[in-house]
Amino acid sequence: SSVEMAKAMAQLIDNEVFRAFATYAAIVLLKMMLMSLITAYFRITRKAFVNPEDTASLGKGESAKKYLRTDPDVERARRGHLNDLENIVPFVGIGLLYALSGPELSTALLHFRIFTAARILHTFAYLIPLPQPGRGLSWAVGYSVTFSMAYRVLRTAWLL
Amino acid sequence: SSVEMAKAMAQLIDNEVFRAFATYAAIVLLKMMLMSLITAYFRITRKAFVNPEDTASLGKGESAKKYLRTDPDVERARRGHLNDLENIVPFVGIGLLYALSGPELSTALLHFRIFTAARILHTFAYLIPLPQPGRGLSWAVGYSVTFSMAYRVLRTAWLL
Amino acid sequence: SSVEMAKAMAQLIDNEVFRAFATYAAIVLLKMMLMSLITAYFRITRKAFVNPEDTASLGKGESAKKYLRTDPDVERARRGHLNDLENIVPFVGIGLLYALSGPELSTALLHFRIFTAARILHTFAYLIPLPQPGRGLSWAVGYSVTFSMAYRVLRTAWLL
Repeated sequence: SSVEMAKAMAQLIDNEVFRAFATYAAIVLLKMMLMSLITAYFRITRKAFVNPEDTASLGKGESAKKYLRTDPDVERARRGHLNDLENIVPFVGIGLLYALSGPELSTALLHFRIFTAARILHTFAYLIPLPQPGRGLSWAVGYSVTFSMAYRVLRTAWLL
Repeated sequence: SSVEMAKAMAQLIDNEVFRAFATYAAIVLLKMMLMSLITAYFRITRKAFVNPEDTASLGKGESAKKYLRTDPDVERARRGHLNDLENIVPFVGIGLLYALSGPELSTALLHFRIFTAARILHTFAYLIPLPQPGRGLSWAVGYSVTFSMAYRVLRTAWLL
Repeated sequence: SSVEMAKAMAQLIDNEVFRAFATYAAIVLLKMMLMSLITAYFRITRKAFVNPEDTASLGKGESAKKYLRTDPDVERARRGHLNDLENIVPFVGIGLLYALSGPELSTALLHFRIFTAARILHTFAYLIPLPQPGRGLSWAVGYSVTFSMAYRVLRTAWLL
């Protein structure tokens, strides 16, 4: 049974569509995790914190309190992070179901690669920031890819 | 091996519980994605933006700055979106493990359908808004369904 | 086919790494869901709400409006919840792919257990609050575990 399981898992990991999904899902999740580091970088360099305990090393009493403030760069990074959550979570959930629905490898790769590129562009467009419609378009492209995968999942899986 | 994999995936997609999960997971994730469009709709119709680059087409300098403001409808849609993230993410993660734990189809469908209905009601209750306890109850129903699925997952999977 | 599927699912659920993943993923997702209850507890005991319809039972007109306010404990619980979303979502997504990549059980358990312990500590560090670097370290430990799993996923799955 352990041998059979190992065989079943080897099959899954041998499947090229599933391997492609695992690769791009890991990349976009790591990209999303990177937003935490960018927010932390801006909090430290701009000295803009939200928790009193985070400013203890910067001084005592009133002199530390002045660092409990918002900063435009910190807030921008946080909005980019939340936008990632709102868009990368559906991609990973729907993408897993899509990868299991048996699409052509070339079609699947097209979906995964366009989504990944669009979300990386979205982050640059948000942080630089690029003039609109740069950010809007990169958002819409990623959104459309997830929508297209959801359409195939529903067509394949819908219980009649 | 590619043939065996295709067979294994065909089995997964043939499994009625897994197909039901794929259907309802895709529906609630699409419903969550819809919140982005609702927020964008309110931002545009109420002219309430947060990024300076988003107001560039509305005027120059001071005349555009007045659109960098919060609006009650925009904030309400954003809270509904965040509440979806907080509740639909656990449903999808725990629901996948639940679907693989071998529940009865009728029991699984009951869980998936009640959760989906509760979250759709929650969105209407939040956006209209309905008087409490409308929103609170729809939240609690969805929460309880996910909790019930987690209980079965832990009972089935727990390493002793 | 239904018999074969049942066999394939029994194999998956018999696999110790997958069972370990299911256990710890369910635990951290439940922990994340607990943050909703903690936020609700603070909203009710501190009488600090954000939706007008939530204060209707506390009085009419102006006397209810004074409860539409922010409270430090409510905001702290909300930040803890958002931090969970930002960190537990990547753990569940990458952890599932990691569990399917065939790691040693002892290595996998080490990853899952350290992450789970780190996130529980993070919640205590945030809510008490503990002086820094308590919260920062518990965050960094969980982050590193997910990063380590992503490294194995990419090494195993990367399409060459």
